Amino acid sequence: MEGFNVVFHINESIKWAMLLANVSNLIKDLGQENIVIKVVANGAAVVDYISNDNKDNNELLNRISELWKLGVDFIACKNSLVGNKINENLLPKFVTIVPAGVTELVKRQSEGYSYIRP
Amino acid sequence: MEGFNVVFHINESIKWAMLLANVSNLIKDLGQENIVIKVVANGAAVVDYISNDNKDNNELLNRISELWKLGVDFIACKNSLVGNKINENLLPKFVTIVPAGVTELVKRQSEGYSYIRP
Amino acid sequence: MEGFNVVFHINESIKWAMLLANVSNLIKDLGQENIVIKVVANGAAVVDYISNDNKDNNELLNRISELWKLGVDFIACKNSLVGNKINENLLPKFVTIVPAGVTELVKRQSEGYSYIRP
Repeated sequence: MEGFNVVFHINESIKWAMLLANVSNLIKDLGQENIVIKVVANGAAVVDYISNDNKDNNELLNRISELWKLGVDFIACKNSLVGNKINENLLPKFVTIVPAGVTELVKRQSEGYSYIRP
Repeated sequence: MEGFNVVFHINESIKWAMLLANVSNLIKDLGQENIVIKVVANGAAVVDYISNDNKDNNELLNRISELWKLGVDFIACKNSLVGNKINENLLPKFVTIVPAGVTELVKRQSEGYSYIRP
Repeated sequence: MEGFNVVFHINESIKWAMLLANVSNLIKDLGQENIVIKVVANGAAVVDYISNDNKDNNELLNRISELWKLGVDFIACKNSLVGNKINENLLPKFVTIVPAGVTELVKRQSEGYSYIRP
């Protein structure tokens, strides 16, 4: 495995700002070409992937979109989408759905990814 | 190491519902026979292992018991039991005591377990 | 790698008491000579490294100083210091500054350190 691999875990809406700052700092510090970053959202944190009229939400989705363009994978847990009654079709194109977010966290760590829970 | 190995960490009572949902989803997604799961409770989270008259607590212990029957290990930190003035004899049979929960978290990770902090 | 290696992650002031108790228990349980411990503070948690007139803060810094004498590394994220408008010169001698706390968390894990997020 060349470079670094990291999986971030978020399950609370309030942690998004901290998580995105962490991801930005990591890319700035190590260089985009030296790191693979996956962000796994489950629990209530998946709600924020859905665009609404809120200004903070708009800004959040803009920042996520910018980081996605830099190669960061943003992932939503299907169990959490169902639990929060979210229609998958409403998710932005930059979000990937996995059957269980927790499985993603386990599999990536078993492949050698570091785990960070902001 | 065949299959997957995961250690969950909980130190806040409020996280139990999320943690048990994560554990259930992991078992459903990967299959019970393909995963070893240990749940380490320290800090205030050990209090919830003790049965009381509260309906939510009853439901929590029922869910823990069901997952234990599926092979999940539930662990309590002895330091935290002492700190919370909990008599060990009051713990349900499905809870294992370790001297320090944090040591368990370190040792399992050093053996290759993934770490998840809901 | 002989013995155990652990990196603790803290980004909320409220978690310091739990974190220091975890670190103390780990040293007591495994023996100081068998474990390397690094504590990475980022986000709002870096603020508590700065001495103020508050009694709780004094006690916290005393405990950190004692653990540092036992060999524990205490680290502050420079991005977070800047974000919280903290003058680096005010940091106690037992705190090391790194450019990005999150990078430290990734690099240590890639070297085999266990990760704990109290």
